[in-house]
Amino acid sequence: MNVLVVTAHHDDLELGCGGTIAKLFDEGHRVISLVMTHSGYQGRDEIRVRTREDAIKEAHLASQILGYELISFDEDTFDMPISDSNILKILDSIFKYKIDTVLTHWHGDTHPPHRRINTMVLHACRHVPRVLGFAVNWYIGEQPFLPNFFVSINDSQWERKIKALQCYKSEYKRAGQRWVEYLSHQTLTYGIQIGVQRSEGYIVYKYLWGS
Amino acid sequence: MNVLVVTAHHDDLELGCGGTIAKLFDEGHRVISLVMTHSGYQGRDEIRVRTREDAIKEAHLASQILGYELISFDEDTFDMPISDSNILKILDSIFKYKIDTVLTHWHGDTHPPHRRINTMVLHACRHVPRVLGFAVNWYIGEQPFLPNFFVSINDSQWERKIKALQCYKSEYKRAGQRWVEYLSHQTLTYGIQIGVQRSEGYIVYKYLWGS
Amino acid sequence: MNVLVVTAHHDDLELGCGGTIAKLFDEGHRVISLVMTHSGYQGRDEIRVRTREDAIKEAHLASQILGYELISFDEDTFDMPISDSNILKILDSIFKYKIDTVLTHWHGDTHPPHRRINTMVLHACRHVPRVLGFAVNWYIGEQPFLPNFFVSINDSQWERKIKALQCYKSEYKRAGQRWVEYLSHQTLTYGIQIGVQRSEGYIVYKYLWGS
Amino acid sequence: MNVLVVTAHHDDLELGCGGTIAKLFDEGHRVISLVMTHSGYQGRDEIRVRTREDAIKEAHLASQILGYELISFDEDTFDMPISDSNILKILDSIFKYKIDTVLTHWHGDTHPPHRRINTMVLHACRHVPRVLGFAVNWYIGEQPFLPNFFVSINDSQWERKIKALQCYKSEYKRAGQRWVEYLSHQTLTYGIQIGVQRSEGYIVYKYLWGS
Amino acid sequence: MNVLVVTAHHDDLELGCGGTIAKLFDEGHRVISLVMTHSGYQGRDEIRVRTREDAIKEAHLASQILGYELISFDEDTFDMPISDSNILKILDSIFKYKIDTVLTHWHGDTHPPHRRINTMVLHACRHVPRVLGFAVNWYIGEQPFLPNFFVSINDSQWERKIKALQCYKSEYKRAGQRWVEYLSHQTLTYGIQIGVQRSEGYIVYKYLWGS
Amino acid sequence: MNVLVVTAHHDDLELGCGGTIAKLFDEGHRVISLVMTHSGYQGRDEIRVRTREDAIKEAHLASQILGYELISFDEDTFDMPISDSNILKILDSIFKYKIDTVLTHWHGDTHPPHRRINTMVLHACRHVPRVLGFAVNWYIGEQPFLPNFFVSINDSQWERKIKALQCYKSEYKRAGQRWVEYLSHQTLTYGIQIGVQRSEGYIVYKYLWGS
Repeated sequence: MNVLVVTAHHDDLELGCGGTIAKLFDEGHRVISLVMTHSGYQGRDEIRVRTREDAIKEAHLASQILGYELISFDEDTFDMPISDSNILKILDSIFKYKIDTVLTHWHGDTHPPHRRINTMVLHACRHVPRVLGFAVNWYIGEQPFLPNFFVSINDSQWERKIKALQCYKSEYKRAGQRWVEYLSHQTLTYGIQIGVQRSEGYIVYKYLWGS
Repeated sequence: MNVLVVTAHHDDLELGCGGTIAKLFDEGHRVISLVMTHSGYQGRDEIRVRTREDAIKEAHLASQILGYELISFDEDTFDMPISDSNILKILDSIFKYKIDTVLTHWHGDTHPPHRRINTMVLHACRHVPRVLGFAVNWYIGEQPFLPNFFVSINDSQWERKIKALQCYKSEYKRAGQRWVEYLSHQTLTYGIQIGVQRSEGYIVYKYLWGS
Repeated sequence: MNVLVVTAHHDDLELGCGGTIAKLFDEGHRVISLVMTHSGYQGRDEIRVRTREDAIKEAHLASQILGYELISFDEDTFDMPISDSNILKILDSIFKYKIDTVLTHWHGDTHPPHRRINTMVLHACRHVPRVLGFAVNWYIGEQPFLPNFFVSINDSQWERKIKALQCYKSEYKRAGQRWVEYLSHQTLTYGIQIGVQRSEGYIVYKYLWGS
Repeated sequence: MNVLVVTAHHDDLELGCGGTIAKLFDEGHRVISLVMTHSGYQGRDEIRVRTREDAIKEAHLASQILGYELISFDEDTFDMPISDSNILKILDSIFKYKIDTVLTHWHGDTHPPHRRINTMVLHACRHVPRVLGFAVNWYIGEQPFLPNFFVSINDSQWERKIKALQCYKSEYKRAGQRWVEYLSHQTLTYGIQIGVQRSEGYIVYKYLWGS
Repeated sequence: MNVLVVTAHHDDLELGCGGTIAKLFDEGHRVISLVMTHSGYQGRDEIRVRTREDAIKEAHLASQILGYELISFDEDTFDMPISDSNILKILDSIFKYKIDTVLTHWHGDTHPPHRRINTMVLHACRHVPRVLGFAVNWYIGEQPFLPNFFVSINDSQWERKIKALQCYKSEYKRAGQRWVEYLSHQTLTYGIQIGVQRSEGYIVYKYLWGS
Repeated sequence: MNVLVVTAHHDDLELGCGGTIAKLFDEGHRVISLVMTHSGYQGRDEIRVRTREDAIKEAHLASQILGYELISFDEDTFDMPISDSNILKILDSIFKYKIDTVLTHWHGDTHPPHRRINTMVLHACRHVPRVLGFAVNWYIGEQPFLPNFFVSINDSQWERKIKALQCYKSEYKRAGQRWVEYLSHQTLTYGIQIGVQRSEGYIVYKYLWGS
């Protein structure tokens, strides 16, 4: 499989599908990560800062742990628009890498740039036979995320997911403990639901089985 | 508040809303539990057996731990029908105890008797101003359970929930470890989502705020 | 409770939740109203005009009748964007006033700026434990508004809601009679449904019960 | 048009679509009403009683006011099952009267026999090109009834609807005032929504426009 | 009837409701087509080009085959925004032509400008009593398009639909064969579902029956 | 894979997933078909008759064409209940054949026995990691069937699906031409949507990817 992961920000891939990416790597598949924004920002307190240079450097470290190839663009971290030129960036990767499977933010994510990525991906993927959506946070919006498509991940894949998350130093320092707690409960819960140890969960937009 | 919990089986209350019932008890509210079936059954292997006598004895022990009053009926554990006479049993308790709040199985539960309870409760409660639905298992059906109404529970309430579950000896022996694992992940996950330590979750059918 | 109401336009609060705000005032709660746009506009006929000066003056009068504190911003009445800077305005109020409960436009409102407010609020409120949505009009879109969370309002609260609406003179002159007819039918209908005289209705995004 | 209305109980037609039936009569269409149960019952208090003889006598009076032809069956008022023989009763009328349009209970009604009628009608109507659903009460269940198909009714049609309801004496004595209040608010609200004076509302299962 | 069709691009009307428009023409109704963008664009390959001049010239030919009046605006083909000025263009036509029925893109279309047209139309039509949505493609997004409102079309109307599509020469050369295959399967499938030969399908936003 | 197909009637498998079963056979998987009813019935006209003997004989012929093993039970064709004993029949097959994948009627099918099968299967499969739903007819109910999981089928698999359907002689004589027309349009339409020649479509209840 040639898999494309499309996200708004550096660290979204790790949160949403890091274990699955490690598993795809272990099974010999090629994974491209397209990150649409530079992901730098300054917090409300004007002290917390993540420079765009740090963000991309950290993403490169994470990509080596999980085994994916990184393509990143320079859109604004929060105010990235839905635009034809951004859709074309996604289309270009789909053609260039002969993509057959796409993973992206789900459509009900409460963060506006995540949702805009979903809108653009669903349009760009009109000829891609497999598109799945993941959640990168636990925030409650107007509709629930409850996956029906599961990928079991083993201990090593789980550990690499967390190790890759730790590459994002400033974010991890701020939110890492909560992330790991939540992700651990969530992957174990999905595991119980589907009958394995740990699992990441997805919603299916479309899925062609077999070839 | 005068709260009525309507379930199909002994142990459903504990699984679905045990911590909330402990909290209601701590805050001085009255809670009635109406269990529609005798809850005895024999497993496929013809060895696993739960007699109706055990079921009700265990429920009385659990009721003392959580602080609720038990009313139980003798319908068949699995093949209980939706019927006018069963609806009248629910209505009788609503009138007798001046019920203003009802907790019950949610409408999408995959177990047929749970779903039938929901159908009967929603009809019987047409004049009750507060009705909430809970899940007692993690099985995946045709629609997701994702709560938007939360009740935070403290350590003591969590412990009483588990202690009450342990009263159901044969069931706990079979499924208890899995129950506790799942319930722990789930209540901690809901806690993270709503900003408390642990929480039980509900869907809202109707809720009148204040008086 | 510290309640924040976030709306697009002056008069939306009164239409959507005016009776509830009067009730919260009566019960001693603090209510902040954040209005994102200046709310001035010119009708298609180029005769009907509501100046931004009138809009804010009228809102101050209404705020005195209902007992809320007004914060207003200067975004364009119709073309206000979803933007990080607008989200930060909402976040600032949440922090400054230690908000625990937010009321806002529901997500399916057919007016684009109302819907954008909803999107921004759901994101900004990711750490607020109670968020409810209301409707300010009766227009039919792609999904129905049917509330399941109700707040009963007494005669005095209903009268203050209407009196506050009358402060918006030019709008009231144009639409007031229809507003009052519709709101009267609607609050009485909700009252019949939930078993009180009159009620305003909400959908629940998330609600933490108790503390 | 040859219209079939299928309901569980005598008086459901009047509550759910009485004004529309009066309008269809005024416009020269033929309307058949199929009522599946005898509609007799005894209340919880053992005093309130509606005999099956009264029910059918009252229905005949109502049918003369609204201008429909009555067919009634003798199933149990509350415990009528979904069964092949009941489905065949509906099919027989569809064939006999060359029915092209069917009105019936909507699928989310909280009263179990209403919902069973819906299930049987949707199956029996697999070759009927127009099927619409109405609500006969205001009770809140697990999903909202919000119509998107409207039939405006004039003063005379509204009056005949209420007059026909008054034929059901014992029911009207018990619930009539509440019925009329609710129906008046509801038809006026739908009228405002769709731009007429008064309207009844439906959900569309399927609708073939023109011939 | 005075019917307004609002679409993003020249050729959307033909794909989504061309047979219905031919039928409305045959029955003597007036149909106005409002196309919001100039519809010119350049493909990823920089070879495929559709000039705005060609687009409008082709649309005029198509309009003569189907019998509608064309109004077209000059917004960007892909990046047309939701804006008050674009909403006013729709409102102006509604007033000028005394529109009572509107057909437009459905709300779940995966192409962002189609979806934006839907948002603007639902708002602009708040006083129009009949609004229906159609699909112009088969792409799979986050929710399904399954119509419940059908318009049967005869052979001549089907042929004019295809003939009108053929006016869009460059688009037809690229996609025409696939279009015709898909549209033929789809209209025959809808025909089987609703009991006629061929049918176009719609979802109902609101529909006032009769006058 | 060990695949179990659970249906109400002989011929449902062929209509809903016949091409997929042929493909699973070609790829060396084992497929068990569990049919819950004897499938004999008499039409309204008392002339059309399908004996239970014919039904099972025809099913055995069809099973040889598609390559599945047949298990059949003797429940009533239309009035088969949801019951614990019927659920146990499904559970027994799941255990006996070490089933990991189940295909069955989808939950919104308008035929009551089809829907009851779905209810029992979703409950019985609480520990099965892959459950998919298919449609066996085109009838319109209260919610749409639109698949997001697709299995492409080649010409030989398509031909065997139709050939297997032809084994059901009396049914095929009555409805066969319409079946083949509809199924041909539908599988070609799904093929266009997912980018293959022909495809059968499913909805996903749960799906564990990989092992």
